[in-house]
This record gives sequence, structure tokens and C-alpha cells, in this order.
Amino acid sequence: MKYLEEKIRQFGVVKPGNVLKVDAFLNHQMDIDLFNKMGEEFARLFEGRPINKILTIEASGIGIACVVAQHFGNVPVVFAKKAKSINLDGEMYSTQIRSFTHQRVYDVIVAKKFLSPDDHILIIDDFLANGCAVDGLIDLIQSAGATIEGVGIAVEKGFQEGGKRIRERGIRLESLAIVESMNDETGEVVFREQ
Amino acid sequence: MKYLEEKIRQFGVVKPGNVLKVDAFLNHQMDIDLFNKMGEEFARLFEGRPINKILTIEASGIGIACVVAQHFGNVPVVFAKKAKSINLDGEMYSTQIRSFTHQRVYDVIVAKKFLSPDDHILIIDDFLANGCAVDGLIDLIQSAGATIEGVGIAVEKGFQEGGKRIRERGIRLESLAIVESMNDETGEVVFREQ
Repeated sequence: MKYLEEKIRQFGVVKPGNVLKVDAFLNHQMDIDLFNKMGEEFARLFEGRPINKILTIEASGIGIACVVAQHFGNVPVVFAKKAKSINLDGEMYSTQIRSFTHQRVYDVIVAKKFLSPDDHILIIDDFLANGCAVDGLIDLIQSAGATIEGVGIAVEKGFQEGGKRIRERGIRLESLAIVESMNDETGEVVFREQ
Repeated sequence: MKYLEEKIRQFGVVKPGNVLKVDAFLNHQMDIDLFNKMGEEFARLFEGRPINKILTIEASGIGIACVVAQHFGNVPVVFAKKAKSINLDGEMYSTQIRSFTHQRVYDVIVAKKFLSPDDHILIIDDFLANGCAVDGLIDLIQSAGATIEGVGIAVEKGFQEGGKRIRERGIRLESLAIVESMNDETGEVVFREQ
């Protein structure tokens, strides 16, 4: 998606250690107009799939998922929670996700009542790198016996293994921008041709 | 807002200890159509205010804030973060927020580049009870020298002190549903007349 690639070139910042900061428009300050353009593109890419629910994970996937849902007929959005809360009762599906950003392992939960075998789910998230978050969401969906219709990602780090592994599992993965390489000295970002 | 009150009566669950679970439509599974109706109502309530940015806090405020922003001309949404991340660099405004739900104190941060003295900010969150989260967001905005145009809340627990304290500070606070009392034996929820 050229529009997102241009946003990344214009407002993204490349840091040492293959860190791409997109906090000006994607995951700290959020550009709602961009999110709607992303929603249009996901709707085009997943056209014909019987998606009736979107699943994401807190925190930075939530805003994208809610705006994108409007392009799928206002389907409900469920976000997986990273921490236990005393307000959460009843039965939960749970899994564990390793966060390299935060250098820890999270317990991640979704209330069982919000995932059912009748659900046809689109996973939405802001970033895909090693793929641990998406793996965890897939695990939650499979625990519920629901159907994974696909995975929609804003920015994929194409030089990390997550995208390849998910595609090899036969899961439809669409990333709107795939970074092939980046240079923290020049600030240059090279995108995969799609 | 009658529509939200009806949602609460129909899908909310009253638990012992004055806990109101609205996870079916507000803060775990999210009803995007409802969020748009809330956005219309906030736009009506804050009409004429020169709002150019929305500030919320992760996680459950984010979805509401992003959908609501569409009713304020797609202003950017910034969410305050509860945990430090090694991907966050540069200078931050920070404050501390006590969470009674999670029984701990969080450090909460916003990158300085996303709050400026030119900003006229609407705070959006899902719940207001003791008001600690809103107090923290107000503190961040004041640290930046920005203007607080108002606070928009989905559900206020009117029997806790947060709303009263914020209104007494002269800050315009609009809660779309204010719970006066609830009964965990009958499930009854009584709303304040607005």
C-alpha cells in the first residue's frame, strides 16, 4: 500500500538494532484517516471472506482494528488482554506470548464467550516481526474452534521470520507494507514489491 | 445517552463489590456501531470547542477514542502508555496512576512531541470511577502546557468521587451514562437523569 509506505518514509524513524519507530502515526499518536485507508485496503484484500469478527491484541492493535472493522460491516472487535484483571471472571482461553520489545513473556487471555466455533475471524495488528503475537492469537482462535479467515498487518518486518512462518502454515497473511531492509545511518527504508 | 443506558441494561452484568461488567460491548468485545453513536453524541456535547487532538490511555480507551475522533474531523488520537518500552526513546511526560482494578500504581507516559502548548485536547476514556486515570491524563496535558477542552466518558460510576472532583476543578466532563446505583442481587442499574 503505497500510501502507508510514503507515511513510513516521511514520518518513520530508523533506529539502530533494526528498530522502526512509527509512533507519529501508528502506535502512539494515531492517524485515523490513515487507518480508514488501511481499512479500505484490507476490505479489498479480504473481499469474499465471511469475516464476522476481528481479533487483535492490546494495546496498539486496538485502534487500527476498530477503524478497520467499519470496512467489514461494523463487525465486533475483540482484543486479547495481556494481564489478568480482577474484573475478568468466567472462563478464558489463554496462551503465552513472548515480547521482544518488552523482553518478557505475557499471559494473554480472551473470554470464552467472545470466541465460538461459528466465528470467522480476521486478525489485525500493527506490527509483525518474529510473529509471536500473531501465533498467540491463532492459538486462541484454534482453542475456540473458530475459523481463521486471515491476518491483516500494517507493517511487516520482512527480514524477520514471522511472516514467512505464518504463510507457510497456509494462513492468508496480508501486510500493507513489508520492510525488506532499513539503514539507521541514512534513514533509508526499502520495501518489498507487492 | 439512552442508547448506551439500554446497552448496559441489556448486556451489562452487575457483580458484587459495585463491579459493572460491560465487556460484551465496551472494553473487551467492542461494538463499533455503538462507538460511532457515542462519537455523534460527544460531537454534539462539545460542539464549538476547538478540539484538535484526543488523548486516551491504554488499553480500553483506545478503540472508543479512535472511532470518536472521526466525529471531530479525524483529529489525531494519542494514547498514554502504561509501561516503559525499549522502543520508546526521547523525552516523555510522565505521571503515576493508581489502578484499583489491578491494585497497583502505573507509570504513565506520553512522548513530549505529541503534546504541545498549541493543543486543545479532549480526553476520552471508557470508565470513570475514582478518577485516577483522568487525573493522570490531566496532569500530562498540564505538563505540556496544552489546553483541556473537556473529558468524555462512556460510563461514570456516579457514586464514586471521580466525576464530582473533576467537575469541581472547573473541567467540562460529559459522561454518556452515569450509574447512580446498582444491585448485584437483582442486576438492576439505576442511571442519573441527564
